[in-house]
Amino acid sequence: MEKIRLGIVGYGNLGKGVEAAIKQNDDLELVAIFSRRPENSLKINSDCVEVVQANQAKDFKGRIDVMLLCGGSATDLPVQGPEFSAFFNTVDSFDTHTRIPEYFSRMDEIARKSGKTSAISIGWDPGLFSLNRVLGQAVLPEGKDYTFWGKGVSQGHSDAIRQIEGVRDAIQYTIPLSTAVERVRSGETPDLDTADKHLRECYVVVEEGADKDRIRNDIKTMPNYFAGYETCINFIAEKELREKHSGMPHGGFVIRSGKTGKNKENNQIMEFSLKLDSNPEFTSSVLVAYARAVYRLNKEGQTGAKTVFDIPISYLLNQSQKSLIKEIL
Amino acid sequence: MEKIRLGIVGYGNLGKGVEAAIKQNDDLELVAIFSRRPENSLKINSDCVEVVQANQAKDFKGRIDVMLLCGGSATDLPVQGPEFSAFFNTVDSFDTHTRIPEYFSRMDEIARKSGKTSAISIGWDPGLFSLNRVLGQAVLPEGKDYTFWGKGVSQGHSDAIRQIEGVRDAIQYTIPLSTAVERVRSGETPDLDTADKHLRECYVVVEEGADKDRIRNDIKTMPNYFAGYETCINFIAEKELREKHSGMPHGGFVIRSGKTGKNKENNQIMEFSLKLDSNPEFTSSVLVAYARAVYRLNKEGQTGAKTVFDIPISYLLNQSQKSLIKEIL
Repeated sequence: MEKIRLGIVGYGNLGKGVEAAIKQNDDLELVAIFSRRPENSLKINSDCVEVVQANQAKDFKGRIDVMLLCGGSATDLPVQGPEFSAFFNTVDSFDTHTRIPEYFSRMDEIARKSGKTSAISIGWDPGLFSLNRVLGQAVLPEGKDYTFWGKGVSQGHSDAIRQIEGVRDAIQYTIPLSTAVERVRSGETPDLDTADKHLRECYVVVEEGADKDRIRNDIKTMPNYFAGYETCINFIAEKELREKHSGMPHGGFVIRSGKTGKNKENNQIMEFSLKLDSNPEFTSSVLVAYARAVYRLNKEGQTGAKTVFDIPISYLLNQSQKSLIKEIL
Repeated sequence: MEKIRLGIVGYGNLGKGVEAAIKQNDDLELVAIFSRRPENSLKINSDCVEVVQANQAKDFKGRIDVMLLCGGSATDLPVQGPEFSAFFNTVDSFDTHTRIPEYFSRMDEIARKSGKTSAISIGWDPGLFSLNRVLGQAVLPEGKDYTFWGKGVSQGHSDAIRQIEGVRDAIQYTIPLSTAVERVRSGETPDLDTADKHLRECYVVVEEGADKDRIRNDIKTMPNYFAGYETCINFIAEKELREKHSGMPHGGFVIRSGKTGKNKENNQIMEFSLKLDSNPEFTSSVLVAYARAVYRLNKEGQTGAKTVFDIPISYLLNQSQKSLIKEIL
């Protein structure tokens, strides 16, 4: 059996997760890891995989079937996406929500021109959560959906706390408010904004002699980030932060609550949820499954940019249609 | 805007659910209901909808875009499926698991010949649950999945109790065992068969003077149905059965529990769950969303039999790709 040949662009948490995920799939093979860092500074977890400077990637045209772009959405992907889709099938996790339409158009144009297929905004949100939002709206047109995030670390909120004077380090967890979750699960369809659905839990390490009351107040009143939210603040020692809060758990749920029946007398609730020990590794696992799909779509001549909405689920699994029908349907 | 013209074949619980669901979708229109019952014996819930003898359906060729086949899997669909797919695009909920491969082949052959598109085995299991099993296996290849059903009425088990001497009527609920559910949700991956995952709760109305101890024993020891299961039996009055147990709630969940990471050190849990006040109405709502998809697939020339695995989610919702990307991704 010929394996699907993959490349990883960017070797941070996501790239490392992709490297590990590829090993869980017999039909996939990692050929090379591309990075901007000097080749011999990169210690990777695989044998027989080349480590190459990102700017030499074009030399691998014809030797790699799909490139997994593992850079960030702020500055990496807007450049790497178009660059790579001119030569390779690609998968990325572009997640700057407001810029997705523009990114999609650009990727679609380039990939169509190059005859390649590019799956964009793959992961869990955007990604599998988006898929479930569409499914819920399609099946239960009269209803509402609710997306809850967490429990998980928000890098943006953690960074915001770290900017406060006297703070040495901090971690912020976004946690779904169980009262809100229970209302929705019970079939109520309340109007809830993000602050009504989530609690913000902060673990803060301060400089010696810092004024904790002022810091507490600075956090709780910070506009856009914490003001209006139920926020709880725990001051802890640096050692405890390192030991207890260095994991990257995350998760959340998408709930669609709708009505059916002659007189809309019946409540119907659909829910998709994730409970993840490692957020980047799960996202990586989704990227890898979609790399398989992109390879197949391209073989069939389906070029251009694709999202989770466009790709049949059968393309994600290495199993024949016949066996899917017999074993899983 | 031209509406998609639909027909319903069979006017039981499922057909009635489809009739109600169509009204929740602006882009869909019900043209006719086909039944074997005499036309004027059928009291339907819609105006401007024809009621027609099933054997006259062919006359509607060209006037109906998609037929929703709402008969049972045991005897109706094996006949109706092939008959209708020779003239119409169809959607059905064929769910006799062991016969699905054979039914798929037959429907695929006929629909390809007639240039029609037929979505088979649509609903929630088979259907949305199957979709989530494939998704889970694709994203977390090293793991296990668990399907739990309930709380919901099992017609087969209710009927089995009704066969026992001295029983006047009965309803059996299948209920997921919370201890099993919690083990799986916590990241354990135990080996569980159906009996380890479910409790059987029975509400039984007996004839006057019937021997309840013997009936209780007959139920608990019934092979294939109850023997080996945790079964609890409640004897109740006929009035209570009618008042409290005539609804058709159902639901369940599909959980994928997998490991990721360099040393498989991280647990990742995906879960899809349904909590339904009305099982047939929810199934109907899924059928209607897939009718839209079938119409679009056929317009694009994608003929033959399809399952939930083959159809991109975007085809289910009446919204442009651009708007899906902007509003939901």
